[in-house]
Amino acid sequence: MSQINVGIIGFGTVGAGTFEVLTTNREIITDRVGAEVVVKKIADIDIESDRGVPVRPATEILTVDAMDLIDDPEIDLIVELMGGLDKAKEFILKAMENGKHVVTANKALLAEYGAEIYRAAEQHGVGLALEASVGGGIPIIGALKNGLSGNRIQTCVGILNGTSNYILTKMTQEGLPFNRVVDEAVSLGFAEDPPTLDVDGTDAAHKLAIIISIAFGSPVSFKDIYREGIVDVTPDDIRFADEFGYRIKLLAIAKDLGDRLEARVNAAMIPKDHILANVNEAFNAIYIEGDFVGPNLYYGLGAGRRPTGSAVVADIIGLAREIRSGAKELMPPLAHVRPRANKIVIQPIEDLITPYYFRFSALDTPGVLSRIAGILSEYGISISSVIQKGRKTKGPVSIVMLTHEARESAAQKAILSIDELDVVAEKTVVIRVEGNQL
Amino acid sequence: MSQINVGIIGFGTVGAGTFEVLTTNREIITDRVGAEVVVKKIADIDIESDRGVPVRPATEILTVDAMDLIDDPEIDLIVELMGGLDKAKEFILKAMENGKHVVTANKALLAEYGAEIYRAAEQHGVGLALEASVGGGIPIIGALKNGLSGNRIQTCVGILNGTSNYILTKMTQEGLPFNRVVDEAVSLGFAEDPPTLDVDGTDAAHKLAIIISIAFGSPVSFKDIYREGIVDVTPDDIRFADEFGYRIKLLAIAKDLGDRLEARVNAAMIPKDHILANVNEAFNAIYIEGDFVGPNLYYGLGAGRRPTGSAVVADIIGLAREIRSGAKELMPPLAHVRPRANKIVIQPIEDLITPYYFRFSALDTPGVLSRIAGILSEYGISISSVIQKGRKTKGPVSIVMLTHEARESAAQKAILSIDELDVVAEKTVVIRVEGNQL
Repeated sequence: MSQINVGIIGFGTVGAGTFEVLTTNREIITDRVGAEVVVKKIADIDIESDRGVPVRPATEILTVDAMDLIDDPEIDLIVELMGGLDKAKEFILKAMENGKHVVTANKALLAEYGAEIYRAAEQHGVGLALEASVGGGIPIIGALKNGLSGNRIQTCVGILNGTSNYILTKMTQEGLPFNRVVDEAVSLGFAEDPPTLDVDGTDAAHKLAIIISIAFGSPVSFKDIYREGIVDVTPDDIRFADEFGYRIKLLAIAKDLGDRLEARVNAAMIPKDHILANVNEAFNAIYIEGDFVGPNLYYGLGAGRRPTGSAVVADIIGLAREIRSGAKELMPPLAHVRPRANKIVIQPIEDLITPYYFRFSALDTPGVLSRIAGILSEYGISISSVIQKGRKTKGPVSIVMLTHEARESAAQKAILSIDELDVVAEKTVVIRVEGNQL
Repeated sequence: MSQINVGIIGFGTVGAGTFEVLTTNREIITDRVGAEVVVKKIADIDIESDRGVPVRPATEILTVDAMDLIDDPEIDLIVELMGGLDKAKEFILKAMENGKHVVTANKALLAEYGAEIYRAAEQHGVGLALEASVGGGIPIIGALKNGLSGNRIQTCVGILNGTSNYILTKMTQEGLPFNRVVDEAVSLGFAEDPPTLDVDGTDAAHKLAIIISIAFGSPVSFKDIYREGIVDVTPDDIRFADEFGYRIKLLAIAKDLGDRLEARVNAAMIPKDHILANVNEAFNAIYIEGDFVGPNLYYGLGAGRRPTGSAVVADIIGLAREIRSGAKELMPPLAHVRPRANKIVIQPIEDLITPYYFRFSALDTPGVLSRIAGILSEYGISISSVIQKGRKTKGPVSIVMLTHEARESAAQKAILSIDELDVVAEKTVVIRVEGNQL
């Protein structure tokens, strides 16, 4: 029985989960790999801390110096779970230089420096696996690399941030405002304090960048992905969405438009009966359409010690199997041996074409609706439904509209112009709608 | 650029779909594999027939003799899509003897002769891939082999037969009886005529046998899996299920009980808000629980030329990558290099413990409920809810019950005894309930 030696850098939540999976399921993993997967060393700057996990590594394998692992000639595979950018990148590149295969869950790093890291893996002839960087325990990266590999991927729509989804679920179920739910989530430990990168769309954009890179075979930076978060979503909008037959979700969207790629993260309305609309709490899901496979959905827990540990170990097993098989050439990080002929060009958000939801805060005087509708019509935006409710208290009333497909630039200009009307009391709320084309 | 030569045996629906994927997405597939995948020969007893597909193979590559492919030293990989048992098995074993890798979508064959075929692949050092045998385009086999490979699989619950799911969906949505919906489905071409193996649970049991073999690392025969179909489900039961908060689905269920495995296919009630309850029409879905990953769901089209073609091509790509990588040892068919220490022992259905739904047809006379409840109590079966509706017409009334968890043998005996009561007019309907433990 041969042996694959693993070094883990970073013994926080995911590191502890990874060690726990490898230890608890050692027998099954050996059966599946045909070799023993042994954690030879673990590096963490704070090795004294008790992670509160049932399985603790032996003190002898702990070190505070990551280079102890990277320079250990007996270690075949480095698992980077420390997070952060510069130091993590340095360790990964050093490990690759030393001929070591790498597993990482570091979505921020891959979303920013992916191109450089993927190139280094290929140059040094080592494997790089990144399942745990997207969707926690959901094997979506594996599906894109393998199960859907015969397809031209047309559409990816993901609920990729569990914190945002938890917040929107609570807002929907309990009618509470954003800030109340965030405070609760933070105090219950369900959200970081403050959960900025979760609720502003950055984390989801990191993950979308990685999904796009694999689905379309060429690295993209998350900085090219337009992103909005959920901080402006109100219980009012959730209620109006419900009346129109929609739920509001933070969606990460990529669509192949032929010559260009639509790629964006934003709070969006999605028909209530769409399977994504029913993904609640901290669950993640990714909806994929391929030209032959049609619609596919992958659903599971998007974060947490155990699910993410499961994904990291799946990657360790995958690389261990490749090493053991005697393969002379490992699968490239993006599962494309030859880069796609067409570079990925992301469409500017101004060119987006989609239906919109507008909520106008207008004075309750005659002619308001006609003035708003007039401006929309000037910009070629056609209305599909309107709700105008009678006023209960003093002050402005809500006029709510769904539009047919319109161009983002036109929508933005129309709203600017409408917001200048003297009968419009507050900034208009704009939420994009994922129509029934999904 | 190297080249992988493929021979396809069987040019029916799936064969045509496979050829269509390989032809349409040739460039992308070459990018992903790093080698050209070329269909060198196609064998079919009826090569003249036009499959109605947009992409037709050149006449020169067509043959009526499968041995032309199996004996061709230039062919690396045989794709068996002819279906049937003996002849397909003979061809697969011959191809393996000749050192060829094999892809198959033949679930009936694998469910019956899997052990022999898996052994042959390992003996001859060739790959055998079978993604297309379960769940059409859904890459569930890949998820079990790779993405979930760090987990002890605890539960698999699948909607694995699209025809049955289509029929139950229509019965639910339109309140129509089984026979009416079947006739319609057959006339629309959505079901075979007659759809016996689809509606009696056999097809789902074939697929469950394959899932179990991979999830638990040892081949099982579908003959050991208890199965019931959906032919006895009535619109009445669907309505009562709805009142109790359940939907009726044909479920294929495997649960790791520690020393034994629960494995069965039956029409079952499942809570309306469970994600599986909302899988409708011809869609398939597989719900998996692993000890670390927690709950996972995989959803997509379970049959058809294009989705199944997608799965076959994913397998071709997977093997082509392994061949090209120079691997000396390919992944074994069940993705276990060492068979599990514990053989799979399937629990007899009599030992099943689950909640039940009973619909009694009783005369509307005093004391009926107490006599029925008395017998249930004798057998230790405890009732959780009852619906008894007033009589609208002459004849027996329905008394409907949900029970707490009970043992199958006790339930069967109690019902036998109840059906002998003079106040019971018809055979009692028994449907197992998948409780909220999912």
